[in-house]
Amino acid sequence: MKLETNEELVSGLNAVLQIILTRPKSVHSIFIGNTPNKRMLSVEDEAKKNNITVLKKSSSFFEENFQDINHQNIAIRCNKRSEESEQFLNNIINKDNLKILILDGISDPHNVGACLRSALAFDVDAVIVPKNRSCHLTPTVRKISCGASELIPFIIVTNIVRTINLLKENGVMVFGSDIQAKDLHDQVEFTRKNALIIGSEDKGMRRLTKANCDQHARIQMSDKMDSLNASVSAGILLFEISRQNRINSLQIE
Amino acid sequence: MKLETNEELVSGLNAVLQIILTRPKSVHSIFIGNTPNKRMLSVEDEAKKNNITVLKKSSSFFEENFQDINHQNIAIRCNKRSEESEQFLNNIINKDNLKILILDGISDPHNVGACLRSALAFDVDAVIVPKNRSCHLTPTVRKISCGASELIPFIIVTNIVRTINLLKENGVMVFGSDIQAKDLHDQVEFTRKNALIIGSEDKGMRRLTKANCDQHARIQMSDKMDSLNASVSAGILLFEISRQNRINSLQIE
Repeated sequence: MKLETNEELVSGLNAVLQIILTRPKSVHSIFIGNTPNKRMLSVEDEAKKNNITVLKKSSSFFEENFQDINHQNIAIRCNKRSEESEQFLNNIINKDNLKILILDGISDPHNVGACLRSALAFDVDAVIVPKNRSCHLTPTVRKISCGASELIPFIIVTNIVRTINLLKENGVMVFGSDIQAKDLHDQVEFTRKNALIIGSEDKGMRRLTKANCDQHARIQMSDKMDSLNASVSAGILLFEISRQNRINSLQIE
Repeated sequence: MKLETNEELVSGLNAVLQIILTRPKSVHSIFIGNTPNKRMLSVEDEAKKNNITVLKKSSSFFEENFQDINHQNIAIRCNKRSEESEQFLNNIINKDNLKILILDGISDPHNVGACLRSALAFDVDAVIVPKNRSCHLTPTVRKISCGASELIPFIIVTNIVRTINLLKENGVMVFGSDIQAKDLHDQVEFTRKNALIIGSEDKGMRRLTKANCDQHARIQMSDKMDSLNASVSAGILLFEISRQNRINSLQIE
């Protein structure tokens, strides 16, 4: 399917529904397979409520456009979500529960895309990356993120250390993933207002980034391997943060 | 650096050391930066004990050959580890503690490479993939695995269901990752002799694979996202299996 350069095609039930719910004005149309199930019909209803065109498509349409993706016979054509500037942080920094993921120099679009997907799955409020020496929202990142790039704010900042300090001044506790940390990640207490930093594939966090963290954490592993893939590390850490936040919020209720 | 087609260049302290320790005969030479630290010197000693040539190299050598990889100024040139056939299972199936990772139709080499790296980090004994419709040990897989492909047995089988049943007959409990599972993965009890199955990126486990598992498990996540990247799921599940096995072995001691 041919798209305008400012458009994106995203598949999957939850991603399609979330895009309709959060930014219906950006949507051109949705595409639904010929034999929709109950969940697909409820998404179709939601689209119609928002005056969005619904088009029926054969399975070959989905196979052609979403090879190797779990498309679930549903897709949406919408305007691409743009990258955000530092000012976007003002919208969220006062939240009581805040989760931020900072990617300090990750250059592989597969890693950034997989990190965005995990960030959305584990309720991260925004992903922050530095302006230089870092992969931004490229077409590969958007594809690998399976729709997460269209939903999660992707903030580009000029100076990561300044951003870390801004977060800390606003009550955010900043954790850095570091293979030499003394604390194991599942023994760290992650606060309800936190930021997790994942460093670059080759060198980890930069020196000043590392020095400005409140705490470092490492994932326990065999001595046969030095480190994990950056997006796998991010996934394991974000899962743990999400798990602890869930338990804490149950205790508060 | 130009290599023969049957050769591989692997960087990183632990990977280099493990290759020297486990298959010294496959090694041509090792490369060490000009200012080796204590750990690098101990790897150099190990190489010399095995009559392996040690070559000093400048940092530009490492930068050219290991872009975006945490090379740690050490590398090894060795024969590629070949894929194994089903018969390899006979060597390990009687172990009391056995961890197997089965990739049921993963097609993206980035995912397979990251899975191999996590498998080595979390003490998996072997990775099994089906012969058809599945990514095998390609150059990209080897590169992304950061040396894990040269250390962990990569077994290709003709029929995954037959292999699952062979494992079960030998006391292996087979767990499948499935987004529709009723059990959360961190509430599942993983036995000391286990196999974890990760399905394909688009469709998950195949019907018969799924039906032959002892238990299914899912990773708890936000309802905004349907699923995680396959290698991220594998990493989160393997970490949990490794964590439980570690706790259990402490209790036995």
